Order: sequence, then C-alpha cells, then structure tokens
Amino acid sequence: MKYGRSYNFSAGPAMMPEAVLEEIRDEMMNKDGSGMCVMEMSHRSKVFEDIIHEAEQDLRDLMGIPDNYKVLFVQGGGTLQFAMVPMNLMKNGVACYVETGTWSKKAIAEAKKYGEVKVVASSKDRNFLYIPDCSDLDIPDNADYVYICENETINGTTFNELPNTKGHILVSDQSSMFLSRPCDVSKYGLIWAGVQKNVGPAGLAIVIIREDLIREDLATYVPTYMSYKTHADAESLYNTPNCWAIYCCGKVFKYLKNLGGLEAMNQMNIDKASILYDYFEESKLFTAPVEKKDRSLMNVPFVTPSAEQDAAVVKATVAAGFDNLKGHKSVGGLRASIYNAMPKEGVEALVAFLKDYEAKL
Amino acid sequence: MKYGRSYNFSAGPAMMPEAVLEEIRDEMMNKDGSGMCVMEMSHRSKVFEDIIHEAEQDLRDLMGIPDNYKVLFVQGGGTLQFAMVPMNLMKNGVACYVETGTWSKKAIAEAKKYGEVKVVASSKDRNFLYIPDCSDLDIPDNADYVYICENETINGTTFNELPNTKGHILVSDQSSMFLSRPCDVSKYGLIWAGVQKNVGPAGLAIVIIREDLIREDLATYVPTYMSYKTHADAESLYNTPNCWAIYCCGKVFKYLKNLGGLEAMNQMNIDKASILYDYFEESKLFTAPVEKKDRSLMNVPFVTPSAEQDAAVVKATVAAGFDNLKGHKSVGGLRASIYNAMPKEGVEALVAFLKDYEAKL
Repeated sequence: MKYGRSYNFSAGPAMMPEAVLEEIRDEMMNKDGSGMCVMEMSHRSKVFEDIIHEAEQDLRDLMGIPDNYKVLFVQGGGTLQFAMVPMNLMKNGVACYVETGTWSKKAIAEAKKYGEVKVVASSKDRNFLYIPDCSDLDIPDNADYVYICENETINGTTFNELPNTKGHILVSDQSSMFLSRPCDVSKYGLIWAGVQKNVGPAGLAIVIIREDLIREDLATYVPTYMSYKTHADAESLYNTPNCWAIYCCGKVFKYLKNLGGLEAMNQMNIDKASILYDYFEESKLFTAPVEKKDRSLMNVPFVTPSAEQDAAVVKATVAAGFDNLKGHKSVGGLRASIYNAMPKEGVEALVAFLKDYEAKL
Repeated sequence: MKYGRSYNFSAGPAMMPEAVLEEIRDEMMNKDGSGMCVMEMSHRSKVFEDIIHEAEQDLRDLMGIPDNYKVLFVQGGGTLQFAMVPMNLMKNGVACYVETGTWSKKAIAEAKKYGEVKVVASSKDRNFLYIPDCSDLDIPDNADYVYICENETINGTTFNELPNTKGHILVSDQSSMFLSRPCDVSKYGLIWAGVQKNVGPAGLAIVIIREDLIREDLATYVPTYMSYKTHADAESLYNTPNCWAIYCCGKVFKYLKNLGGLEAMNQMNIDKASILYDYFEESKLFTAPVEKKDRSLMNVPFVTPSAEQDAAVVKATVAAGFDNLKGHKSVGGLRASIYNAMPKEGVEALVAFLKDYEAKL
C-alpha cells in the first residue's frame, strides 16, 4: 500500500479511507484559507459552524434521516450512551433488552441502575453465535423501549431483520455497522453509534433521536451533559464538542456520498465479506463459527481446531504485515474486522495468505 | 506567518504550536512506521499504549506530579467535570465554591444537583473584575472540598494566590491556564482542565486526582463513565479514549519540555501579556478593566469608552486579519486570548495595530 500503510483489521479504532487522510493532512496548517487548523478553530466561529452543519446535512442525505429526527454529536462514547439511553428514555422505568454479546451485556448492566430491565431474548445458550428470534417477544405494555446492539463486534453477529417491537420504541447501538448499509431511520426511536469503528477517530458518538423522545422532565441527578435535550437545543454546541472528530467524520460522509451512498457501500461490503466467508466454507483449517444467516459483514471471526493453532496463525499474520487479527480475549480465535474503509485488496491479500498458510501445513 | 496562518486570539479552541502541527501533518499517513495514522490505531495496541504512557509521563515531568496522584484522560469536557467533581467528591454532601464568573457559576449550578453548595466568596459585586480575598473563608468543618476556577476565561481574572482552604481539599478548574506557569500539584486534591484552550484539540479533559480521593462507594445513579475510579483503574483505557487528542497533547507536552518547561513558558507568558497591559496603561482609547493584581496572562479583556466603539475596533481587527478579538457576549468589549501557543510576534502585531488605530482617530 501507498505510504507503507498496512492492512489493519482492528475492531476499532480502525482504518479510514486513505483519500480522506490525505485531505486532512493537506488542510492541517491552514483549512481553506481560514488561517487555522480545524483543531484551532473556535467552535462558535462561522468556519466551524459550516463544518458541523455540512457534516450533519451529509449524514442526513446518506441515511435519509427524516426531519423529525435530531442528529447529535456527543462525547463519551458507548459507555456514556449506555447510561444516557435509560436516563433519558426510561419514563415508566421499564426497558427490554436483547442480549447478543458483550456490548449488549454492558448496556444491560448500566441500564439496571436506572430502572427495571427485562432481557426479552438472548443467544447466551450458544455463546452468542447467532441472533435470537425476535419476531414475537414478550414485551410488557409499559416498556419504554426495546434495545438491541445491531452488530456485535466481538461475536461477529448482525441483525438482518429488526425485532418486532409491537409498537414500542426501538433503540439501536449501530457502532460497528454504522453507515455500512442502508438504514430506514423511521423504524427506530433512537440510533447511536461510536464513530471509531466505521467512520472516524474515537471520541465521538452520533445520536439520531426522534424529536418527541427528547424530554425535559429528567431525574434531578441527570448531569446537564447527559440530557439529550441539552445537545438538541444547542445543536451539539452547548459546550465545545469534539470538533476534530466532527470534521473528520464529515469528510468520510462526503467520501461515502461520492462512492454512491449506502447502497453502493453495502454492495462493496457484501463482496468483501464473501471473499472471507466463501473461503472458510471450503477451508479444512478454518471455520466461521457464526450461524450463516446472522453473519456480520463487518466483523468476521474464524477459528482453527485448537487455541494453539489459532495463536500460531495470529503470529504468522503479524509477521506477514497484517495487523490486529487476534480475536477478542473473551472469545479467542481470530477476527478480521473489515469496515467500510478496508479495501477489497486487503481482504484478498489476507485470504491469499491464509490459503497459502493452509496449503503449507 | 508561514502557510498564510493568522494570529488567532480565540478563547478556545485556540492556536497550537506550528511546529507541533507540522509533525502531526507529517505523521498523518503512517505514524513512525506503524503503517497507520494515529486515528486508525487500536487503543489496545502497543503503539498506542506507548503514546498514552509517554504523554502521561511527559505531563508528570512538566508539572512535577507526585506519585500519589493519578492522571486521567476523560471525554466530555468541563460540562461533564462540573458533575463528576461533586458526584465523586461530595462524601458529606457539602462543598464550598468561590464564584468568580461564568465558569464557576456553571460549576455551582451543576454541583447543586448533588449536595449543598456554599458560595464562600464572590466577586459578583463588581462584575467579576477581581478575585475575592480568600485568606479567611468561612468553611464548614464537614465541607468536602473548596472549588475554584483558577483562571476565568471570560472575565480575564486569575488566582495568583490559592485560597486558604483551612485543611480542606482544593479542587481547581485550570482549563484556561493549564501548563501556563509552574504549579505545585501537592496543594490540590484535584485539578482538571479541558485541553482545548492551552494544549490541544477539544474533546479531552485531563484530571489530576490524589489517589485517596478516588472512591468506590458512589451513589448508584452515577454512570460508570463518570466514576473517577473507572478511569483510574483502567489507566484511562476503560473504553476507547479520545486517542487523537491524547496524541496531540503529548506532542505539546514534549514541545513545552523542549522550550524549557513551565518556568520558561511562564516567563514568555509574562512578557507577552505585559506588551498588552503596558499599552493599555498608556492608551487614551483602551482600558483593561480587571484589577491589576488579578489580571490573567492568558485572557486579556479590554474596552473603549463605548459599545459602539468596541464594535468598530473589532471590525477593524477582523479586516486587518486578527481573528476572534470580540469579547464574550456576556461581558462585551474585546478580549485577546494569548495562550502558550500565541507567538510574541502576534501580540506585538496586535499592539502595533491598536496603536496605529488609536493614532488615526
């Protein structure tokens, strides 16, 4: 790769498009004749206001976000969202969660601080290697929302069909699949995503929330920063936001629009993931453990018959210049995270390497 | 200036050292042969761990931070710290605040959600244009801490002597003066600073906290992200931090060390601020409204005899290529924020311009 760059299969932070990085580099000393780097700009200046407004508009265009949804740029990542969601949306104090792995478990644990949590479906029985049937969930009438982690980064599963919430609000953590495929926002009450997996640098979560869910009557202990209303009323400029991340994400939004939008991106992601999954079907050494219908196009776990062999393969990939293929410590094995910015050539090179490795055994 | 860069007097985000920006630009496509931009690195990777550890060590060296203090890198800025401080430190539910302007008022309002707040001194009577006498404050025995905003960005005041806390813990918001002068950390229980004024890009607060103040027994409603213990136990890597800002701040720490550390920086800041304050002493048009002994070296407000004339001067400075000299809307007038990274030449050029403007009236 150009600049001696490597194919980086990290689960996040992860690769960004090379063309975007080049633009950012070229604007470092003086962005568009402003006389400043974006890191130096007042967040109240006209030049930065243009950046944030353009980023929001491009995101709205990409996802087709309806007018009755607000887009918020919030710091604190998923960990803060795990608390913000129940703090803001638990009106009746009851919420339903679908448990599909580490990230939904973390969300559940945090939500329990703020109300009653009902786990309405789980794939725990088979190590979270599938998405449970969510077509007929037992949802209490007074449930405030149904929460899913739409793509579990660690286990490599994804919802290809949304749960039947029976009229209740759907909340989704889209962190590791945000902008990877078209999304009908109107089906959700709230979508949030940490951007550091599929969009830009860490330190920013994007929240897309239906306006009528933004409440004023929160518990008195809710910090000002953690009220969605604080950010919505001030158009994400109540305090100084992560201006740099907003700027970088804005560049990625434009890059995706130029590629042809989310339909085109989805097709590329299907193509890339197929190269890996197809090989694992035919391989005698590697297996993709996730149930076929629920396989993620973003995070592709795979295993050999033993932990020792897994470790040997990881070592060989590192020596060959492929980064971050070791599976998460909680599940072991290997995992190739192939987000939007991973080039097809990177996946092809990895599969060629793995085939060669297998042939030489 | 090089690259057509402008002298930017913004109160924050604000100028960064040009040499630092050049380094960042040059490492954009491939940081030190890692094959990645820092924005693309896993926060669990060896290469990023080196970055965060080196940044912390350089900060410890610069400030002489004692071993029994933790350094935390937290997202959410001052707004989240306004809540985190009382949530974590109000053991008895009583805290004392010194009211010196907008930022201490915001801290007070947020702290009131979590306990009893006693305003033990205030400069409200004279529009916050001075620092109140804090040598003999009426501090209740059970007060958990005494809180100050050590430099009020908007009003341009600074504490040149710390309050006598009578043995109670001192908490300081150092955002707009962080690393501008030597600091005896051992006098504080907790120091926090949003880095976007005097160090790096927005989206990061640095918290320096004495270890024995880190508590486990917090109220159950405290979000995981908002417990200092969460960040301390995981060395700021409980979740994905703002890696980019940590990297950029680390570069600035090194830059300051190479300049000669905080003693040297302080002397430069005194020199720069004197150029402005000395001129305002002799000027017939401009006045620096803050009481002499309490004047900030970082934020220098100044006024003409009328709001109309203030506006005319602001307009003229913009036309002449000086950015962000308009005073905060809550106080009017003009304000030159001259943080560490503002070159002396920038201050000299501004004073030359103002002298010329005055001469031509």
